[in-house]
Amino acid sequence: MTNETATASPAGTVPAVTAGCVELARARPMALDSGEEIGPFEVAYTTVGDLNADRSNAILICHALTGDQHVCGTHPVTGRPGWWEEMVGPGRPLDTDRYFIVCANVLGGCMGSAGPNSTNPATGSIWGLDFPVITIGDMVRAQALLLDELGIDQLFCAIGGSMGAMQALEWAASHRDRVFSVVPVAGAARHSAQNIAFHEVGRQAIMADPEWHGGTYHGEGVVPRRGLAVARMAAHITYLSEVALHRKFGRRLQARDALSFGFDADFQVESYLRHQGSTFVDRFDANSYLYITRAMDYFDLAAGHGGRLAGVFQGTPVRFCLISFTSDWLFPTAESREIVRALNAAAANVSFVEIETDKGHDAFLLDEPEFQATVAGFLEGAARRRGLPVR
Amino acid sequence: MTNETATASPAGTVPAVTAGCVELARARPMALDSGEEIGPFEVAYTTVGDLNADRSNAILICHALTGDQHVCGTHPVTGRPGWWEEMVGPGRPLDTDRYFIVCANVLGGCMGSAGPNSTNPATGSIWGLDFPVITIGDMVRAQALLLDELGIDQLFCAIGGSMGAMQALEWAASHRDRVFSVVPVAGAARHSAQNIAFHEVGRQAIMADPEWHGGTYHGEGVVPRRGLAVARMAAHITYLSEVALHRKFGRRLQARDALSFGFDADFQVESYLRHQGSTFVDRFDANSYLYITRAMDYFDLAAGHGGRLAGVFQGTPVRFCLISFTSDWLFPTAESREIVRALNAAAANVSFVEIETDKGHDAFLLDEPEFQATVAGFLEGAARRRGLPVR
Repeated sequence: MTNETATASPAGTVPAVTAGCVELARARPMALDSGEEIGPFEVAYTTVGDLNADRSNAILICHALTGDQHVCGTHPVTGRPGWWEEMVGPGRPLDTDRYFIVCANVLGGCMGSAGPNSTNPATGSIWGLDFPVITIGDMVRAQALLLDELGIDQLFCAIGGSMGAMQALEWAASHRDRVFSVVPVAGAARHSAQNIAFHEVGRQAIMADPEWHGGTYHGEGVVPRRGLAVARMAAHITYLSEVALHRKFGRRLQARDALSFGFDADFQVESYLRHQGSTFVDRFDANSYLYITRAMDYFDLAAGHGGRLAGVFQGTPVRFCLISFTSDWLFPTAESREIVRALNAAAANVSFVEIETDKGHDAFLLDEPEFQATVAGFLEGAARRRGLPVR
Repeated sequence: MTNETATASPAGTVPAVTAGCVELARARPMALDSGEEIGPFEVAYTTVGDLNADRSNAILICHALTGDQHVCGTHPVTGRPGWWEEMVGPGRPLDTDRYFIVCANVLGGCMGSAGPNSTNPATGSIWGLDFPVITIGDMVRAQALLLDELGIDQLFCAIGGSMGAMQALEWAASHRDRVFSVVPVAGAARHSAQNIAFHEVGRQAIMADPEWHGGTYHGEGVVPRRGLAVARMAAHITYLSEVALHRKFGRRLQARDALSFGFDADFQVESYLRHQGSTFVDRFDANSYLYITRAMDYFDLAAGHGGRLAGVFQGTPVRFCLISFTSDWLFPTAESREIVRALNAAAANVSFVEIETDKGHDAFLLDEPEFQATVAGFLEGAARRRGLPVR
């Protein structure tokens, strides 16, 4: 029931990427945290590398809020390189010569997986706001069904940054026997008040756009471009550090010698943000943005354990590697440290590295040698433990 | 040419506030930094306390982006107390028994001073975007004209937080003989790339609202409520610290026992932000928001001195007291420290205090005893130097 197409890749640069789409929950619908059910539903994914005979070398990459399954190779919509080519490839930390890499568009997403802009099979119409509100737990549940389909009983590793870190943590919390190790990067065990606040601004910006039409814009043949662009602009600032913004733009003017004394983009940083907003709209769905930000806001790993995070991980067999970045003010190191403390209290096997960088939250997407070395090193040790061939 | 009305105040609580409105630049228009001119134009202000015989005890309070001249007493629009009642009053740091307090709505504002929502005397219509783009320097120039009108040659002090700090610094930089001392609180010598970025998000939110109508909404009988509310919400987050948001709201739910699995305000922090947005619209003009944020973005004190801040203050007779707050990430202590370094290099008389607080940028508006004591102490010393009666 999977439908796969292999994409030729530029010679020598990135390995062949296989893109697939699979219908899940065919026999019976999947239960959601909200109490609703969904199914059958589709999940779009990519794989790179080969699954070994033991089916023990699979690494699941969990993408962030506005990411997707296209970790490497040319993105089919934007034509740009995959978002994690720094990390995925032959000889890279997620070594495609040794590991079978899987990345799925999250449930609620807009790059081929079921979400508010996909078709509701029961009605034949776009879901819109009739799509059930989903959680990080639901996203992971859908990924587990995908692994069933791919014949993978246990992941060697689940890794991701930001919302991807939430999913990796959820894997360890809810599916501990199906994941050997997890690498949550720049994440948190729950979304903070400040982060909920920023998300709420983005949602309000979208819903304030009259072209959102109460969520039914697909039927109106329009898109709430301006609201979604404003949401992206606000969020984008939070992904960068103040230092990075200063270094990149400072107060430099955009294609002019003097202030215009008007409301055009005088400063490079304004022009950059406007560009971020307008290009985002071409690749992302506004309702998906609502759903996925909501899933992040709802994330609170300890909520089911009376607020005690150590209770979540009691007796866990999973090996953890937590990573944070010094200049990340959206998911600051303190959030990772809280998880590490809970893991220590639960006597878990945990490693923790705070990477010194001024690039902010987005550092996990950028060329950060120490970050790459940390992931490569952790996976090397985990591979030895798992009985996978080591270098 | 001034038009003053005294307001009775609740007995014993706050002193009598005199509200006035004066037409300035009557004889000849005032030159603006843009090269344009404006005049005659009105400035609305309040005063509290009495000007002494020497006219030497005047303190000018410079308000922040969304502030106004109503520092104490009941606000005529919102019905709420003045925004700086913690600081202004008998026995308070800005002691109305000893000082003559003046606060004027900034040029470009919307509480009675000339701005985009006031009437262009040349056309009889609302200015809208025909209002000239103004700078912090222009705001201060208008304040200087107001002081001429009030018969005040030299201020004892110019004080303000945030954009008010920019104005206080501008007073010291451009009118050094007309100000004895300045107290810039939670300010900076120039607006940072990150701060410009946040302002640009707010402006884009306003301009994305179809009811903005290219700035001509007054003529259409509408207001870009939703865009302005989103702008306010985004800005409001930056005024608080992450710790303050966590303490105030955490992940507590709003008037419900469980998550709604929808897009209503589940969390208290969402509800709070929505409230901040919607009440702001009732008291603030969207075009004013564009103009004043622009003035802040343009602020760069050293720009006229080849980027050398010490050059601005060379040989200054002004006494400075810089104040910052540890948890202010919008105008962090490093910004104040840079000014202090420049003042030291210019051999200026400068005092600097970083206040330990977790309340963020807005700490200057809140009950912060150490902040109040710092201002009171500095003014006491300055009063002695100025030959004003001391306690």
